[in-house]
This record gives sequence, C-alpha cells and structure tokens, in this order.
Amino acid sequence: MHGKLSGWNDTIAAIATPPGVGAIGVLRLSGATVIEIINSLFPSKNIAEQPGNTLHIGFLSDEGTILDEVVLAVFKSPASYTGEDVVEISCHGSPYIQGQVLEALIKKGARLARPGEFTQRAFLNGKLDLTQAEAVGDLIASNTKASQNAALKNMRGGFSRILKEMREQLIQFSALIELELDFGEEDVEFADRKKFMDLLAEIKSIVDKLLQSFRLGNVIKNGVSVAIVGSPNAGKSTLLNTLLNENRAIVSEIAGTTRDTIEEILNINGILFRLIDTAGIREHSPDIIENLGVLKSKEKISQADIVLYMFDMKTVNFEQLLSLINEIKNQNPNLIPVANKMDSSSDDANQKIKEVLPETIFISAQFHKGIELLKEKLFSMAAGNEVLSENLIVTNARHYSALKEISASLEEIKKGIENKMSGDLLSLDIRRCLHYLGEITGEISNEDMLDYIFSKFCIGK
Amino acid sequence: MHGKLSGWNDTIAAIATPPGVGAIGVLRLSGATVIEIINSLFPSKNIAEQPGNTLHIGFLSDEGTILDEVVLAVFKSPASYTGEDVVEISCHGSPYIQGQVLEALIKKGARLARPGEFTQRAFLNGKLDLTQAEAVGDLIASNTKASQNAALKNMRGGFSRILKEMREQLIQFSALIELELDFGEEDVEFADRKKFMDLLAEIKSIVDKLLQSFRLGNVIKNGVSVAIVGSPNAGKSTLLNTLLNENRAIVSEIAGTTRDTIEEILNINGILFRLIDTAGIREHSPDIIENLGVLKSKEKISQADIVLYMFDMKTVNFEQLLSLINEIKNQNPNLIPVANKMDSSSDDANQKIKEVLPETIFISAQFHKGIELLKEKLFSMAAGNEVLSENLIVTNARHYSALKEISASLEEIKKGIENKMSGDLLSLDIRRCLHYLGEITGEISNEDMLDYIFSKFCIGK
Repeated sequence: MHGKLSGWNDTIAAIATPPGVGAIGVLRLSGATVIEIINSLFPSKNIAEQPGNTLHIGFLSDEGTILDEVVLAVFKSPASYTGEDVVEISCHGSPYIQGQVLEALIKKGARLARPGEFTQRAFLNGKLDLTQAEAVGDLIASNTKASQNAALKNMRGGFSRILKEMREQLIQFSALIELELDFGEEDVEFADRKKFMDLLAEIKSIVDKLLQSFRLGNVIKNGVSVAIVGSPNAGKSTLLNTLLNENRAIVSEIAGTTRDTIEEILNINGILFRLIDTAGIREHSPDIIENLGVLKSKEKISQADIVLYMFDMKTVNFEQLLSLINEIKNQNPNLIPVANKMDSSSDDANQKIKEVLPETIFISAQFHKGIELLKEKLFSMAAGNEVLSENLIVTNARHYSALKEISASLEEIKKGIENKMSGDLLSLDIRRCLHYLGEITGEISNEDMLDYIFSKFCIGK
Repeated sequence: MHGKLSGWNDTIAAIATPPGVGAIGVLRLSGATVIEIINSLFPSKNIAEQPGNTLHIGFLSDEGTILDEVVLAVFKSPASYTGEDVVEISCHGSPYIQGQVLEALIKKGARLARPGEFTQRAFLNGKLDLTQAEAVGDLIASNTKASQNAALKNMRGGFSRILKEMREQLIQFSALIELELDFGEEDVEFADRKKFMDLLAEIKSIVDKLLQSFRLGNVIKNGVSVAIVGSPNAGKSTLLNTLLNENRAIVSEIAGTTRDTIEEILNINGILFRLIDTAGIREHSPDIIENLGVLKSKEKISQADIVLYMFDMKTVNFEQLLSLINEIKNQNPNLIPVANKMDSSSDDANQKIKEVLPETIFISAQFHKGIELLKEKLFSMAAGNEVLSENLIVTNARHYSALKEISASLEEIKKGIENKMSGDLLSLDIRRCLHYLGEITGEISNEDMLDYIFSKFCIGK
C-alpha cells in the first residue's frame, strides 16, 4: 500500500520524556537492530531470549563504564507501538545521564529519531491509520477535557472508519462505471444510478456534518482569543480576576504551563479562552473615541476571535459608546458589549442600554453578578450552535480541507449524473473524490505529506 | 530495625517524569492497594492475575470515560523498586492527561506521594541502605561524568559497605568490653587491647581518607564559583568566550538547563565552574584601586570559591597591581592573577611580573594561549591535590559531619585505652562511634532524619 520509504527500518532512538530533571527519564528505541544494540550495553541478560512485554532491571554500561541502573521495557515485533522491536529504557531523571545513554545508543548504531518518527513507523506498518496517528499528536497537545475526548475518539478509529466504509462503497460504483466504458457503444448501465445517488447523498450528508463540526473542532483544539477592551476605570482587571479566580482550580490542573499562561487562560466547558488584556487602551487619554484610530489595541481587536468591550454603567456616555461600538464592530464583528457596575446604575440607564445595544451583557465584576451569563455568551459565540456532544468532530485542518474537496467533488458527481454526463467524465470526478477520502485516512499518501504531518510531532513519539 | 512509620503502606502516586509536554509521561504507584486501584481503572485485564515484570497495553478509563491508552509496567512485591506492589503507567505526554490520570488514581484511594517517598519506602523495606538511597537523589541531580560516577558508586554500595564491616567488628569489641564490666572486680580482659588498637587505627585511617575526600566530593557535587574580576579592557569577555566556546560541546549536552546557565558554566575534567562576571568593576572608573572599597564586586569576591583577577600586560601599572592584588587577597585568598595579552607585552614586563607575582598565569585570550594552563590551575585549586580516581568520595554533607564525629570518637577511644580508662567510660565512647557509623548507613535512624533526607528528593522518586 505504501511505497517503501528510504531506510525506515534502521534503528531510531530518542528521549521520549520532557526535558528537565525528574524522577524518571524514558528513552525509546525502535528498529531492526534494537535487540543487538541493547545486548551490547546491557550485560546481565540476553534480551533476544526474553519474551515481549517484559521488564528487566540491570545496569547499562558502555565498554565497562556504568551509565545508570535502568529498567528495560521490551516489546517484540509485531506487538509493539511501531510494529518493530521496541525497547524503552527507564533511567534516572538526570538530563545528563539521559544524554549519556542516548550517546551510547547512537555509538552502537542507532540514529536520532526525527519528530513523530515512531508514530510514522506505526502508520507505515499498519498499526494506525493516518487520522489515528494524527490523533496521537493531538492527544499529547490536549489540555482540556474536550480536546482530550476529540483526540481519543479519533485515535480509536473515529470518523476515518466511516470514511473508509464510504470509500469502499464508492470504489464499487466507480468500478462498475468504468466497466460501462469498456462497453462504450452499447449503452449498458451496470451501476444502478438511483442507488448511486442515494450513496452520494448519504456520503455528502456525513461529510457536510463533519465540515460543520470543524468550527467547533478548531476552537477545541486551538482555543479562542478574547481581547478585553475598555476604558481604564471600567473594571477590566476586576473582571479578569473574577473570571480567573473561579477557574483557578481547573486551570491549575494543567501542570507544566507557565504561570504567565495560566493567568490568562479561562476554561469554559472544555474550551480554552485566552484573555488578552489590551494595555493600549488602559494607558490612553479618557477621550477614547477620537483616539481609537491610533491605538495599538486596534491590531489586537482585529486579530482576536472575540472582542469584549467593557464600560462603566455609572459614567457611560451613550453617544460616545455607540460610536465606539460601531467603530470596533468595523474591526471585528464578534463583539460582546459588557456593562459593568450594573448594581449602582439607574434603571433608566439600564433600560436605555437594553434598547440601543440589546446584545449587552450586564455584570457586576466586583459582586460576581452576571458572570455566568457572560461565560455562556463567550462559549456560544465560540462554539456556535454546536454542543460538545458525543458526535465526531473534525479538529484537523488537513482533514478539513480534504473534506471540502470531497464535498465539492460529490456535488460534481451528482450534477454529472443528473446531466447524464458521459462515464469517462463522471469517472474523473469519482476518482477525485476517492483520492481525497483516501488522503484523510492515509490509504493514499506520499512521502512529503507524511514528512509534513509527522514533523509537527514531538521527538520521541 | 526501623520503627513502623505512620501509614507507610498506604498507596502513593505521583507523576515521575519532568513537567511539560513530551512523547511519554510516566506515573508511579506503590503500596498495598495498587493492584486494586489499577483494576478499577483498567477494564481489559485483571492485573492481579498477571505475573510481575510484565507490560500491559490498554485503555485507562474512569467510570466509563476513557482517559488515555496506556502501557502498564507491573512489578510485584517484593521484586520492585520500593519492595511493595508497583505499577508504572506510561501515558501520552500531555500534562493535562497526566493530571487527569493522577486525579483518577487519587479518587480510587491513592494519595499524592511526598518528595522522595518511593525511595524512602525502598529504604524502609531494606531494598537500599541510606547512603544508597541518598545516592539515587545525587544521581538524578548529576550533571557531569564525575558526579554521575560518585553517585553510581554510592548507589552500588560504595563506602557504606566498608563502614558496615567496620561497625560489626567494633560491635564485637564493644560486647567484650561490656562483658568485662560484669566481672568488675576481677580485672579480666576479654578484649585484646592490641588487636583493638589495630582495628581503631585501621578505621581511623579509612575515615580520615573519606573526610579528606569531601573537599573534592563537595566540589564535584556542587561545583565551584569563580568571580572574574578585572578592568574593562583587560579582556574578560574574550576570555569568557574562549573558555566557553571550547566547552560548548560538553556544556550543551546538559539538556534542560537554561541558556543563561549554560553560558556561564565551564566543565573542567568533570567539575563544573560557574563563571561569575563582576559587572561592577567593568562599569567602573579606570582608577580601580581607590574605588575598590565601594564596588559591589567586593561581595562577589568574598563569596566566590575562587577569584580570577585579570589584567592587561600592555597597560599594567605594577605598583597599582600589587596593591590591588593584596586588597583582593584580604577578601579572598583563593586568587589567581591572570596576565592577558602576553604576546604583545615586553619580555621585561613579563619577567617583572614573574618576580613579583610568581603565581600569575600568562595567557592570550584572543589567540588561545595559556588557556589549558589556566584550566589546570582552576582545577587544581578546586580539587586540591586529589585526583578524580576510582577512590570512594564523600559528597554528602550529612555523611561528612557523621564522619567527623566518628573520627573524634575514635581519637577518644584510643586515648582512653592508652590511659587505661575504665571500661564503662570506654564503652560510652565506643557507643558514640557506633552510633555515628550506623547513622551514615541508616542502621540507626529516626523519622525526622529520614523525612529531612527524603524531602530533598523530587516527587515521584
């Protein structure tokens, strides 16, 4: 199915755990000479004689010099992650020692693995299809329940199983239509056009649903940027604190993210919102409207996924507010006006705002009022009408663009049949559709595409 | 031997790999209910029925929600690191997923391990003695060949084996001398005083050698700080670059150290020298002598292990130089005068310096001359006359202070025998000596001491 790629059975090695000091560091080794390399460094046992899926404790030494006391996890081909012989070396978590061990492995003939190369081999050896392999990368990068679930679903087969089935049915029709071409002059029709149209409609409905899910998928995978804009006394930092404090417990679960990042990330129902403080406006003169054009915040406003414009109900000037809101909407239509200090404003003022800016969310950042409403608004603006359900979700931009091609070619095929297009032209459209279906699952692939996909992985995976 | 410590058979869990995103993250679990906890989260196999030292692949799920696809490494008591049942969970290297798995383990009854608690249990279960356990921590922290070797040697038994033997011999004599006390009036002598004196001398010679090795051991473990002092045009930064560039390959091996740290660390024969640039002097007026008293560098000079004073041979003023060198020596006697630009200076000037400052090292930072000599000088000043040999080296301050007590008590015992001291007084000194010998290897320990020792470990070890 896949062309033999250059030298992909040589033995590759990498440190698989994150850099830094820890209790344990793991090195991973896969390829044809794994057992030989390990035997040359691990004198106490002959690993060739050990069954797969076993653990072995002993000293790793390079020509008499002890490197570390380690635990070897031995996996024998084909029952391993890559399908090849694999050994994972658990050594003490000193980066220096891990470096020493890696150096010894390379001296014995292994080479440094490229990013994602272990998973690439798993794919090439048929252990995973391409969407499953890509899901491994997504799983490692996942940082919310939602992104974890989407990746796990894809790793277990996900929508690629459905696409594979559809592709096989499509191939049957394609074969029948091509057979018709052999009988060119006789005007036979082996492929039942009615059944074919039904199949096309079924595939299209699934593909379109998957295409729709990408908006949410993208949001789940990459998060949403929210620019918080407003005059200095509007209460932006109080709101920021209120939002973040309530979420502190959830956010602090994400170990390893830096404090800087944690402080600006808000998790709402599994979607990460990156709150961007627009310092530009804060430091500016009170006459914001006239000066908006020169603000550095302008850039942040137009780049953000969502803009949250905050104003103080007690001091708001309606005319200025509306003019400013319109100006911001020109930059970015995804605007949420937020009226702060709802408690201390007059009913008249509240009523007025509701009339002129009905989309406004009323809050009191200080007294934690309206915060849930604001979060719901942020979530629905990010996720659209989609809900985080058990449905399959496309999170991968490569899949999305292939699905768009599939959808377009399905439309072409349908039109062709309706217009009684000749079999050879129809056949071209079907082949185009089959091509993109196969590209998603990796049944059709080329080295460049694979290299590109796996280069985005981390080393050691 | 050890008192039962509160609840040390409950099940502990921790993330054992460094924080951050990687290909693999490992969680470690040890205790009485490990198998039960894993079985409640790993539906595909009954781990109780699996033999030890085996690997098992499957999905980890918490009440129907899949957390990750993992590999379990199962170790059964007593054949495990801690001596208890141990399971190591290799999951995908997302900090979020690791957090989720840890949470699930804790929900099922494990508790978060304290730093070093796995190794503490290994010690309490007799899998390691105390110096071996401490060596595990040193090994994880090791960042040079020398510190790695010292830690590995101690982990494999090291000098604690010798101390144990000596302690047992000493116990025999102690018993005989205490027996003599029972025959108080009869003036019997069960313990051969001559042989006893020989044993004492043998122990003392070993202990004193170990005490001497601590200077080197400390330097190996903690590195050496070097303050580089000199006028702005003396060529300090050229020297720094020359020293660091030659070592770039070695230094860059230490993955996970920040670039800032790497740039200032020099590895000479396995000892790490931290080069501290004294910015204070650089920015100062050329008339350094008069102003030395007010320089911030004064503090750095007195705190550094070694001071490297650099001057320009072409512009040196001998009187000023000598006066300055004396002033620095008052702050810190470990001074190396370095004469730069040796190439372009007159023979007379060179001769003069050799007469008045014979310890001076002549270099040309720009043309890489004399650099090896300077490095040798730095090494010998740090390591004394010790060589990095196969000898056992004390690197641990706790061991050092116990060894000092042992040496002192040996002296007391010897004096006591020479002065025909009464058996009961002699016995007290012997007990003191036995106490400190046992404290090094952990045969004598208390909970506070153990807690202190293991609290310096990282979590998960």
